[in-house]
Amino acid sequence: MTTSLPLAARADLLVGSVIDSSTSLLAQQSHDIVRFAMGSPAAEAIPWELLQEVGRSGLGSSSAFDYAATEGEPDLRAALLEMLEGTTDRTTDDRLTITSGGMQGLDLAAKLFIDPGDLVTVESPTYTNGSATALAYQAELAEIEVDAEGMSIDALRAAVDRAGRTPKLIYTVPTFQNPSGTSMSLARRTELLELARSWGSVVLDDDPYGMLRFAGADVPSLHELADGDPLVFSVRTFSKIIAPGLRLGWVDADPSLQTLLINAKQSMDTCANLPAQRLVAGFLQRGYLKDHLATQRTEYRRRKEAMQAALAEHFTGRATWTDPEGGFFLWVSFGDEVDTEELFARALAAGVAYIPGNAFSPGRRFPHDLRLCFASTPTDRIHEGVARLAGAIDQG
Amino acid sequence: MTTSLPLAARADLLVGSVIDSSTSLLAQQSHDIVRFAMGSPAAEAIPWELLQEVGRSGLGSSSAFDYAATEGEPDLRAALLEMLEGTTDRTTDDRLTITSGGMQGLDLAAKLFIDPGDLVTVESPTYTNGSATALAYQAELAEIEVDAEGMSIDALRAAVDRAGRTPKLIYTVPTFQNPSGTSMSLARRTELLELARSWGSVVLDDDPYGMLRFAGADVPSLHELADGDPLVFSVRTFSKIIAPGLRLGWVDADPSLQTLLINAKQSMDTCANLPAQRLVAGFLQRGYLKDHLATQRTEYRRRKEAMQAALAEHFTGRATWTDPEGGFFLWVSFGDEVDTEELFARALAAGVAYIPGNAFSPGRRFPHDLRLCFASTPTDRIHEGVARLAGAIDQG
Repeated sequence: MTTSLPLAARADLLVGSVIDSSTSLLAQQSHDIVRFAMGSPAAEAIPWELLQEVGRSGLGSSSAFDYAATEGEPDLRAALLEMLEGTTDRTTDDRLTITSGGMQGLDLAAKLFIDPGDLVTVESPTYTNGSATALAYQAELAEIEVDAEGMSIDALRAAVDRAGRTPKLIYTVPTFQNPSGTSMSLARRTELLELARSWGSVVLDDDPYGMLRFAGADVPSLHELADGDPLVFSVRTFSKIIAPGLRLGWVDADPSLQTLLINAKQSMDTCANLPAQRLVAGFLQRGYLKDHLATQRTEYRRRKEAMQAALAEHFTGRATWTDPEGGFFLWVSFGDEVDTEELFARALAAGVAYIPGNAFSPGRRFPHDLRLCFASTPTDRIHEGVARLAGAIDQG
Repeated sequence: MTTSLPLAARADLLVGSVIDSSTSLLAQQSHDIVRFAMGSPAAEAIPWELLQEVGRSGLGSSSAFDYAATEGEPDLRAALLEMLEGTTDRTTDDRLTITSGGMQGLDLAAKLFIDPGDLVTVESPTYTNGSATALAYQAELAEIEVDAEGMSIDALRAAVDRAGRTPKLIYTVPTFQNPSGTSMSLARRTELLELARSWGSVVLDDDPYGMLRFAGADVPSLHELADGDPLVFSVRTFSKIIAPGLRLGWVDADPSLQTLLINAKQSMDTCANLPAQRLVAGFLQRGYLKDHLATQRTEYRRRKEAMQAALAEHFTGRATWTDPEGGFFLWVSFGDEVDTEELFARALAAGVAYIPGNAFSPGRRFPHDLRLCFASTPTDRIHEGVARLAGAIDQG
């Protein structure tokens, strides 16, 4: 009982994020709260009735509950290849590995490429669980500024100059970025790939929201632009387009990595859960995804517009916000007078939840910013939530 | 297209196992094969009809498909605590983390404790995916002999003397060991814990089969004997008692590790899949497990006895085999004249599959041994499979 535990050096780097403390604080609240915090699809956007229908036949045998192949259930792999046909994520069977959500795709990339002390660049702001995974592999992080055209390639070059070495891995969410909502322009995508080639850096192309475009024109994915360059490692997920609780996604990577990916995944969780793979395979085979995405895109656009209208009503001249063409998130920047971490408890008391900007930056660079998820809240509640946020700020 | 990939040093250590090449060879076979290879429950032992029944209500809302809490769905945690009440794995809420199968429990232990170069002891023979995980964290492995009373503590002491340093982690499957089928005696369990305390080593107590005892008397788990000692890290799974495709298990560890476990799991796969958690919670809440286990234990005993009878018929005087009191596996040892890797293809052609002994030893110490899973094959087919194995050997 008196022994102390011999933790590994990396244990100090297994960081929780403000997201969790926020959401666990959130879980304790019993009063009515408008929830702009989590990046979940709307409850009404989860096609649970269709999934139940698929389950009635797809889960009707013992084989649906056995171990799955580590690379993924053949039916799901086939249905996924067909789903991607004609999209900017079109791919081939030898590049695919089914994962336990997009998060495991990031873990796999980190496991394959990051040695302790390696330089990894992350966006600033970035998706916290992505930067946390790189940290857990003892990477040194450099934050690269994001603006209205996505990650700044000039800032990336400058950071590499400052570091005096090239990055092992360049982590980006290029489309409808989490948390900013902005997308990397075609010119920057091209430039990023050229730079990565010249440096020999792996581009970790994490694109969970690409299929949720509701405005503007399509931009080719980094996967498509790479045209088979082995340096681009693409991570995708069903979490945002079907349901996050299924924990299913895929990695699209150079065929030479397939065996390593299978070996690495085997020592992580053996295989992805098979009933969920059957549900998604059936959902795709029945052709449900197309209508489902069309409905979601229309609804998410309405919600984004409602949120922007409410922000304009309450915050014109006091804050700026981004204008995403898809995805789930808006990024709001206040002046120095608003401390969004300090504001959080007051906002919660007023009945609205969000994620403070510092949660998206290892260096805590965004004390006056916050992320709002517009996707999971109906439009009338969005107006109410933004009004409550304004009230909380005015109380401060 | 010409860039080479900057793999991490650990990439060389992401080994596949003979298990996989065997089973993938197996998957290609179209003729009738008696399958003693995989460690899956019998098809008829998977309660898919009950799981479907649970699913009709448990999956009937969008909330069943949302993100789950990283530590696990509250309903499942509560049902699990109740299920463990009165067993040798009785525990408390502050020690539990729900995992994506037992494999993720092993990955979590490795992530928390193994620094590159650390000495980790594994049993010899050992569960390959366990040793593979330690290797993936760049551990140095030492193999410790297993006999009829489980891991030899004398051999453990001798290995540590030879290494000139104490292990960071001692990996064991103490009960109905995979692959040998033998169990560690109470005396050795006690001695192991004393040694681990004196060395400050973590005991990774991986016990997937403990609830499947069909003969002999209960032995307290390492978890129970440890009585709260933080050095014992216990990994459990629903794979063998309900269904492996659900990918659900749990870690039972010192409460001081809870936050680290949650942070580590978040950067692995965010959370375990929620529909499967709902199915298992409902299965436990409805009290289905008790009858289910009673049925399985009776049937697995019949199958083990059938396999031993068939082995006695064909191999008396030519081989020895273990006498497990539970679990899934028998270990068969031939003399020098049988090379079980070389035999494998011939056995497959004769219509029987097994796993060669060398698959269970990083040092390939078991060229004349093999593992048979008796659990997944009905008794008449067991006789047929052993007869085919004898035929394949006699052809050699």
